[in-house]
Amino acid sequence: MVEWPTPLSANPSLQQQRPVDVVPLIEFDISLPSFKKMEMKLNAEILNEQNSRFIETHKPEYHFLAQSLEKKGVQVNDVIKKLQELQVAIPSWALGAGGTRFGRFSYQGEPASLENKISDVGIIHALTNTAGAISLHIPWDIPKDYNAIKELAASLDIKFDAVNSNTFQDQPSMNKSYRFGSLCNTDSSVREIAIQHNLEVIDTGKKLGSNSLTVWLADGSNFPGQQNFQEALQNTKESLKHIYKSMPDDWKLFIEYKPYEPNFYSTVIQDWGTSLMLAEGCGQRAYTLVDLGHHLPNTNIEQIVATLMMKGKLGGFHFNDSKYGDDDLTVGSVKPYALFLIWNELVYGMENNPNNPSPAWMIDASHNIKDPLEDLLQSLEAIQIAYAQALLVDQKGLQEAQKQQDATLCQEILQDAYRTDVRPLLREARLCSSAAIEPIASYRSLNIRNQLIKERGLHTVASGL
Amino acid sequence: MVEWPTPLSANPSLQQQRPVDVVPLIEFDISLPSFKKMEMKLNAEILNEQNSRFIETHKPEYHFLAQSLEKKGVQVNDVIKKLQELQVAIPSWALGAGGTRFGRFSYQGEPASLENKISDVGIIHALTNTAGAISLHIPWDIPKDYNAIKELAASLDIKFDAVNSNTFQDQPSMNKSYRFGSLCNTDSSVREIAIQHNLEVIDTGKKLGSNSLTVWLADGSNFPGQQNFQEALQNTKESLKHIYKSMPDDWKLFIEYKPYEPNFYSTVIQDWGTSLMLAEGCGQRAYTLVDLGHHLPNTNIEQIVATLMMKGKLGGFHFNDSKYGDDDLTVGSVKPYALFLIWNELVYGMENNPNNPSPAWMIDASHNIKDPLEDLLQSLEAIQIAYAQALLVDQKGLQEAQKQQDATLCQEILQDAYRTDVRPLLREARLCSSAAIEPIASYRSLNIRNQLIKERGLHTVASGL
Amino acid sequence: MVEWPTPLSANPSLQQQRPVDVVPLIEFDISLPSFKKMEMKLNAEILNEQNSRFIETHKPEYHFLAQSLEKKGVQVNDVIKKLQELQVAIPSWALGAGGTRFGRFSYQGEPASLENKISDVGIIHALTNTAGAISLHIPWDIPKDYNAIKELAASLDIKFDAVNSNTFQDQPSMNKSYRFGSLCNTDSSVREIAIQHNLEVIDTGKKLGSNSLTVWLADGSNFPGQQNFQEALQNTKESLKHIYKSMPDDWKLFIEYKPYEPNFYSTVIQDWGTSLMLAEGCGQRAYTLVDLGHHLPNTNIEQIVATLMMKGKLGGFHFNDSKYGDDDLTVGSVKPYALFLIWNELVYGMENNPNNPSPAWMIDASHNIKDPLEDLLQSLEAIQIAYAQALLVDQKGLQEAQKQQDATLCQEILQDAYRTDVRPLLREARLCSSAAIEPIASYRSLNIRNQLIKERGLHTVASGL
Amino acid sequence: MVEWPTPLSANPSLQQQRPVDVVPLIEFDISLPSFKKMEMKLNAEILNEQNSRFIETHKPEYHFLAQSLEKKGVQVNDVIKKLQELQVAIPSWALGAGGTRFGRFSYQGEPASLENKISDVGIIHALTNTAGAISLHIPWDIPKDYNAIKELAASLDIKFDAVNSNTFQDQPSMNKSYRFGSLCNTDSSVREIAIQHNLEVIDTGKKLGSNSLTVWLADGSNFPGQQNFQEALQNTKESLKHIYKSMPDDWKLFIEYKPYEPNFYSTVIQDWGTSLMLAEGCGQRAYTLVDLGHHLPNTNIEQIVATLMMKGKLGGFHFNDSKYGDDDLTVGSVKPYALFLIWNELVYGMENNPNNPSPAWMIDASHNIKDPLEDLLQSLEAIQIAYAQALLVDQKGLQEAQKQQDATLCQEILQDAYRTDVRPLLREARLCSSAAIEPIASYRSLNIRNQLIKERGLHTVASGL
Repeated sequence: MVEWPTPLSANPSLQQQRPVDVVPLIEFDISLPSFKKMEMKLNAEILNEQNSRFIETHKPEYHFLAQSLEKKGVQVNDVIKKLQELQVAIPSWALGAGGTRFGRFSYQGEPASLENKISDVGIIHALTNTAGAISLHIPWDIPKDYNAIKELAASLDIKFDAVNSNTFQDQPSMNKSYRFGSLCNTDSSVREIAIQHNLEVIDTGKKLGSNSLTVWLADGSNFPGQQNFQEALQNTKESLKHIYKSMPDDWKLFIEYKPYEPNFYSTVIQDWGTSLMLAEGCGQRAYTLVDLGHHLPNTNIEQIVATLMMKGKLGGFHFNDSKYGDDDLTVGSVKPYALFLIWNELVYGMENNPNNPSPAWMIDASHNIKDPLEDLLQSLEAIQIAYAQALLVDQKGLQEAQKQQDATLCQEILQDAYRTDVRPLLREARLCSSAAIEPIASYRSLNIRNQLIKERGLHTVASGL
Repeated sequence: MVEWPTPLSANPSLQQQRPVDVVPLIEFDISLPSFKKMEMKLNAEILNEQNSRFIETHKPEYHFLAQSLEKKGVQVNDVIKKLQELQVAIPSWALGAGGTRFGRFSYQGEPASLENKISDVGIIHALTNTAGAISLHIPWDIPKDYNAIKELAASLDIKFDAVNSNTFQDQPSMNKSYRFGSLCNTDSSVREIAIQHNLEVIDTGKKLGSNSLTVWLADGSNFPGQQNFQEALQNTKESLKHIYKSMPDDWKLFIEYKPYEPNFYSTVIQDWGTSLMLAEGCGQRAYTLVDLGHHLPNTNIEQIVATLMMKGKLGGFHFNDSKYGDDDLTVGSVKPYALFLIWNELVYGMENNPNNPSPAWMIDASHNIKDPLEDLLQSLEAIQIAYAQALLVDQKGLQEAQKQQDATLCQEILQDAYRTDVRPLLREARLCSSAAIEPIASYRSLNIRNQLIKERGLHTVASGL
Repeated sequence: MVEWPTPLSANPSLQQQRPVDVVPLIEFDISLPSFKKMEMKLNAEILNEQNSRFIETHKPEYHFLAQSLEKKGVQVNDVIKKLQELQVAIPSWALGAGGTRFGRFSYQGEPASLENKISDVGIIHALTNTAGAISLHIPWDIPKDYNAIKELAASLDIKFDAVNSNTFQDQPSMNKSYRFGSLCNTDSSVREIAIQHNLEVIDTGKKLGSNSLTVWLADGSNFPGQQNFQEALQNTKESLKHIYKSMPDDWKLFIEYKPYEPNFYSTVIQDWGTSLMLAEGCGQRAYTLVDLGHHLPNTNIEQIVATLMMKGKLGGFHFNDSKYGDDDLTVGSVKPYALFLIWNELVYGMENNPNNPSPAWMIDASHNIKDPLEDLLQSLEAIQIAYAQALLVDQKGLQEAQKQQDATLCQEILQDAYRTDVRPLLREARLCSSAAIEPIASYRSLNIRNQLIKERGLHTVASGL
Repeated sequence: MVEWPTPLSANPSLQQQRPVDVVPLIEFDISLPSFKKMEMKLNAEILNEQNSRFIETHKPEYHFLAQSLEKKGVQVNDVIKKLQELQVAIPSWALGAGGTRFGRFSYQGEPASLENKISDVGIIHALTNTAGAISLHIPWDIPKDYNAIKELAASLDIKFDAVNSNTFQDQPSMNKSYRFGSLCNTDSSVREIAIQHNLEVIDTGKKLGSNSLTVWLADGSNFPGQQNFQEALQNTKESLKHIYKSMPDDWKLFIEYKPYEPNFYSTVIQDWGTSLMLAEGCGQRAYTLVDLGHHLPNTNIEQIVATLMMKGKLGGFHFNDSKYGDDDLTVGSVKPYALFLIWNELVYGMENNPNNPSPAWMIDASHNIKDPLEDLLQSLEAIQIAYAQALLVDQKGLQEAQKQQDATLCQEILQDAYRTDVRPLLREARLCSSAAIEPIASYRSLNIRNQLIKERGLHTVASGL
């Protein structure tokens, strides 16, 4: 008996869907053709059937809200269109259970292969129309059959977003260790191994149709004196320049920063300033990547976003949430207003900073106790909510109020957008994209986790963290 | 020409109210009888006229929301009633401009007397029906004519909430200094002065009909070694016991805690644990008071609230908001979700902890750049929004989901309440109480700040911080 | 070829000891009798030989310092005696390499068995005379042959300190999971499993001669709403009371607190106030245990120590250091002055709070990149330095300066003690105890890590974290 | 009777100097010629007499230490020379009592004029030979008679360090307000006022012989939405460029950063990355200035120092200390090891980064409860101690250990330097410079504060914060 994936009851209409036991509505088959068939069913018939249960509640809510927004001057159709267009990459490592240094509670039906991971993203994308990309982590996700993998992804309408290198864990093939750093290492032979690994990641990405590389370094030190800051930064810069030059001409390099962990005294790329310095050192197609969790307590992240977009150097964005450190919690579960304020800057930048390319969006969360797919569905919902709220901000009114130095009014304008219940807009956007009005309710109603368990077994373990 | 108080434009209907110049609708007169008359007009005719502009938009929004909530099982009338009943005290020192150690930008038309301050609270209360109390700070607010003051307050439906002592600033009459502490001082004669001051504050409170004393101590140290922790705590305990015993039998003592500032190495009552220890040492009617801003970075305040209510020891609550320290910003302006989570615990505790008395609510904010009255109106709105959202939480569903260890569902339930746009409920509650549907819009439309400037002048300075 | 354990060069005299290759001075044999023999050699002959290299430098340094301190009124012999008496327990899990959620770089020659772990502590103790106890973690360290283990420990002069339960990782035998908590779980059958586990830990401890139990709970939640704070605290209290009552009459219960991690939204015992509440709820022999790393940013830990000692409720102390969170770094490697200030309160409390029992001392660190034994040697040195400095504080002068409110002088007094180079006192204390004048230099000179690798192999993995 | 400035007792030899009552050894006279005479006496006869009391203890301590350091390869004479050369500017505003937003406890004998302030610095410099510069804040310190002021300063061997502008407080002459920012203001006429003020500050500095301008901006916002981040940054950049171009060709511009306060949501120049961006935008002679207190919790400041020096862009350094925020406490009173680590990077950078100019050193502290002069003496001592310790670091050994990835040894090397009691080196450096062996003891023994009170009165108030 499967105990864990109990259903939703937040919404009374959802409570009726609570499955007493597992009645497979759809047969999953991980052999490629039948999976595609399943997927098609999930997209069309099945989702229609699901949506039929919610559409009567949804329609009047949407129309009432749309009318009210139109009166305020909002172009609701534009908002819907933008919501439909937003696509957020799912990292391959987020589809299994994560853990902490104290251990990991494994989840049932975890994806045991790259095919499984892509299928999982396919499910999320079918339900939301917001997860049309996957971000692979090498060496965890090296495809065996590139064509089959590309075909599978294409069949699910999934693109290959930035590829990620891993130089924070030693690989069996290595005769040296990253214990004291990779691209920054005092030992040039270790740096060389790390550079070569990145080149291989680029190769893998090229074969899959990706066109960007994300470099996150765990490099740093645990103790004062362990590392020469200047030399470590210099080595990192040279290594990154080497990698940058080896990228195809249309690729972008995203350089992540993080103040601490896994090193607890210093990290080589501790903040956006360092990342930007390195990106500028590499060249035009090197950018800073902002991960929400990678900041010291109380950092004003939205201001960093604004500064980077003004410089045309915000390349990517990793979503998650946290209360204390890099907790990698569900997006929007702890500080939804901060998320909105960040989106407010992102929306402003996308309108006003033509020199900044469209950022690469990704969820970088860890799912320690929830069903990973449900967690990702909640994250996508939170991202879309904040985005929709930011789209509702009366930008013209705000600029006028700022000019008049009317702080009360500025706050009213932002809060008016934030306090609006935008969920009907999200539902409408999904409905228009043939996705699910209520993704989590449908996920539970369709017993998807139980299907995955049936297919994959209780005790598979996802590769990755 | 008065430049500063520009009007609202967030809501298109409000933008039309933008006053081009100051046309006094109502004549303010600080002599008591006429002020009361003005106030009556503000309550009835004037507010009706104001509300007439918003009622057409409000009514359908309210009915649509109420219907939707009723379907989910919410007793909307109960929610409205609870919103009407919530009364939050305004501290007398919050009616003028605050500042920082770097200076203070004074505000125009600040209240120059206790009468002015009560009038200001009267305006806020008339507009919101949520500010039916004032919290005085002695010695800044010692009444000259108790009866007149009580009559004025009663005429505006304002009660006298907890009185506050001040032992963090030396008074001209003192021949000793609080530089090295008050109730904790190593010099017993300084402790005695501080105790006597508290007894005088109690006396003032008794004459006004207050029935509680809030003690916030700035006592602490700036440097390691400066203070003997144990002795300071012991002295504080003895001093508080003395004060506690001197209170009338129906009074409560609220003991505030704060980790730092104005002392920057240690404060004698650094956290809730210390405050609770002292409260238990004093007796049954001594309680801990929680001020939102008085916590270290990332503190889980809602959990502290839950623990204190379980112990029956949460006596009072000071609202404000902050991003870094004890910033005393407008309530809900930075972390509205945290405010909601706290209200969720408060609502739970008020339902489930009969041993905990109804907490004393107060706003403890500083208004450095906004019109203090507008800032307080925004704070009250934020408090009511979070309270309303917390009242919408499906407590039964939540408990069931917690029991089933369904973390996804728990989050859905909380967020479903939080994401609801509850503003129509607040408007309805105010409308039913003959207050303003849109308090800030009406405040601006009525040119109230300009009236106050006319009465009081541009350069009055409020007593207090 | 063994590359990693390179030798010391900080001290020129040490640089000469740099071993070019591994020449085994002593033969290690893990069979009990020969190991004891080796140990005896380490204590007497070998250490004498080692010390002979340092004694000429040490003696004048010690005498010069002692003379200077005696002039200031310090009883140097008393200080030496106290340093000799201080014994800090080594936790069994700290003898292997630790890691982070991102991975773990294993160390060579890690202890693969409980016997190995005790031997490792024996080495540290022989070198320092400060590590005369081991703290076991169950189920990682359940002895197979109790008598043999006790005999081994006794032969190395090692006592069994507090035993530690583990309810944060599921055990193979469990048919339920701690995923949603152990002693706090909403499911009484999970609580029962966790309670029973604690009782078994007590049993193990009894057989070994331990007389205290340390309970650290990972219980908490990752998301708002996931857990009912009051119920979780109530369940924890009841569970702890059950455990408390099951302890032998001469046992103590130590209740640890921690604000976050592995849970990232809340932990049931988030701070000392909660721990104290639970300890008081259990009874007289239940105490709060302070772990340096378990605090929010900027917490004044020394003040917590003072408060707990005043209440007679400081039961134990876990040493480590950190810059950001619970980083578990080498003691004194990041904030040595904070460590001194804490020791200043500990020394004061041990003198002035007879109602507080002598606290149980333990190092709770993780050794991610250093040789664990070297890391522990550095930690013990830092603990002893801070303790020695605290013993030098002119307590009488300090109290007088505090009374006179002379903040400048208070600081001078503390800093005078802190700025003293007390290392000659530590060396003398070790010399008088037949331990090593320079523990790390001797550890390297004796090639001990290489010996362990020879015995145990390169790739053993310590049980535990 | 003067109660407050009680004497030192930390050192038994000092305790004998405790003055029972005020016996003026020297007559202070603020008329210029006699003051100079007094000063000469302080430098020569009087200080000799003071030093005669300490020299017998000092000499053997110094020689013992020097001998021991020479054995380790330290060139002690070089260290002494470097200590003698280090000159730290005293800001004019630090000579009176500071305060918090809750109030200010004034100090007796505060300097009431610029002449008084320079005299105070003269006293500190005579005692320490480390305070040979003053940093003025305009408009608080505009000289009336430039020649007289320059003459006074020269007579005391005091230079004019960077001049500081103040655009965070409105001046009586202004018809606009900095309430919503200065160099960033949306209103170009406010920006113009702020720019003009800076040009006037440069003029004042030129007349005094200063050759650098420090710009610290309080600009920022208290509420989300209040300010357009990009526009504010753009305006600030343009304003700074204007100021930069108006500086003489040999001047430097120092741009300070700070994450919060007095604004509590955002500050325009929130971090070093933003400051560097602005400095690079201005030109070659624009630099970043690091103030220790201006960082978020847990920031690795030493790494920032290293990065800026590598870039050749560390222009100045403000010393102070803090536990929570920008507490402006006595240097070294809370985190002396962090100060040492920073000095370690400064020393490394001064050796290895010829492109970085010699940084401008200043103490930026606030003296809320101590005698400001004593506080500054303690700060200078702490700066020199950390500098001396950093000079003792075995740089070659450290680099070798880093190269060998020997984290244990790296830590040993740093801690060996840090744990050394370097005070004899400071005393020797002062003795060789005809300053005081024990500055605070002599300050008290000479009853200097009482002399100042006699001259200036009890209730003077220093201009400035």
